Amino acid sequence: MGTKERRRRADGERSRRAILDEAARLATVEGLGGLSLARLANAVGMSKSGLFAHFGSKEELQLATIDSATATFEEQVLERAAGLGLERLRTLIDAFFRYVETDVFPGGCFFASALTELSMQPGPVRDRLVEFLDRWLGELEAAVRDAQAEGALDADEDPAQLAFEIEAALFFANAGFVVTRSPEAIERARRTIDRRLAAAASG
Amino acid sequence: MGTKERRRRADGERSRRAILDEAARLATVEGLGGLSLARLANAVGMSKSGLFAHFGSKEELQLATIDSATATFEEQVLERAAGLGLERLRTLIDAFFRYVETDVFPGGCFFASALTELSMQPGPVRDRLVEFLDRWLGELEAAVRDAQAEGALDADEDPAQLAFEIEAALFFANAGFVVTRSPEAIERARRTIDRRLAAAASG
Repeated sequence: MGTKERRRRADGERSRRAILDEAARLATVEGLGGLSLARLANAVGMSKSGLFAHFGSKEELQLATIDSATATFEEQVLERAAGLGLERLRTLIDAFFRYVETDVFPGGCFFASALTELSMQPGPVRDRLVEFLDRWLGELEAAVRDAQAEGALDADEDPAQLAFEIEAALFFANAGFVVTRSPEAIERARRTIDRRLAAAASG
Repeated sequence: MGTKERRRRADGERSRRAILDEAARLATVEGLGGLSLARLANAVGMSKSGLFAHFGSKEELQLATIDSATATFEEQVLERAAGLGLERLRTLIDAFFRYVETDVFPGGCFFASALTELSMQPGPVRDRLVEFLDRWLGELEAAVRDAQAEGALDADEDPAQLAFEIEAALFFANAGFVVTRSPEAIERARRTIDRRLAAAASG
C-alpha cells in the first residue's frame, strides 16, 4: 500500500468516525429514528450522495451510529473503570455519571434515549441496542459477583437484582439530568447507590 | 341547547377523545414528535382537513394528546390508589405496575417515552411533559410525607429522596418491560421498592 493510498484510507476512517460522532450527537437530540441521510448530510455539510457512498441505507447508518456510540461509551465509561470487584463497580458508576454530566452526548446517554425511542420498532437496530443494554447490565453484574468473591459484598445478595437497582438509579439520573440540567438527579442517584451498597456490604 | 345540538356536541367530544386515545397509543410506538396530522388521519381513518378542524396545528395536537394521556393516567393510576399514607403509596405503585403490564399504551408509560423523546426540544410540549413528571413525583412525595405523619415511615427519611428512588425503580421497570415483554423487570422493581420501604419503616 503506497503512502497516498494509506493517507486516503486514514482520511476515510477519520471522516467516517467524525460523521458518526455527529450522527450520535444528533440522535440524542432529534432521535435515532429521524436520522436520515439527508438530515445528517445537512449537519455535517456533505452531500447526501457522499454519505450514501459511506453508508448505503438509513438502517446501515443507524447501525454504524450505534457502533460508534458504543466505542465512545467504552472509552468514556468502561475504560475509565479501575481495579476489580467493588472498586471496579464504584468506578464504573462514577464514570457513568461523569459521562452524563460532561455532555459526551448533548441529550444524555445515547443508549437510554435510542432504546426508549425504538423499543417498539422491531428489527436489527433495536436488537443492537438491546444487546448493548444486556452487555452493560452484565458488566455491572460481573463487578458485583467479583465484589462478592473478594468478600466486599454479602454473598447472599442476588447479583442480577443489585445490578438492576444500580442501573435503575443511573437510568433515571440520566433522564432527570437531561430534563433539568441540574446536578440534583445525579446527587440523588449517588445517594441511592451509596446507601444500597452500604446495605449490601458484608459483615 | 336542543337535543340535536347536545347530541352533536357529545359526538364531537366522543370522537375527540377517541382520536386522542389513538394519538397517545401511536405516540408510544412511533413517537410524539412523529405524530403529524397526516399520520394520525391515516390511523383513525379521517381526512387530514377533518383533523385540522379539531386541532389546527401539530403542536395543538401534541398538547391535546398529552392532556388525554394525563386523563388516562389519572383514571388508571391515581384514581385506583386507595387509602392514605403508606397504603396510598403502595396502591399507587401497584396501580402503576398494572398500568404498564396491561398495555394501557402499547409502548409502555406514555410519559416515560414522550419525555425521553422530547427532553431536548424546548417548547410548550416538553414543558407540559415536565409538569406531569413533577406532579407525579409530587404525588409519591406527598404519600411518603403522609406515611411519616401517620408513623408508618421513619421521620428521618427525606421524602423527595424516597420518591426519587421509587420512581427510578418504576421508570426502569417500564423500560425493561417494554423491551423484554417479560414480567422480570417489574418483579425486580417490586423487590427494590419493598426492600426500600422495609428499610424506611419506623420502629
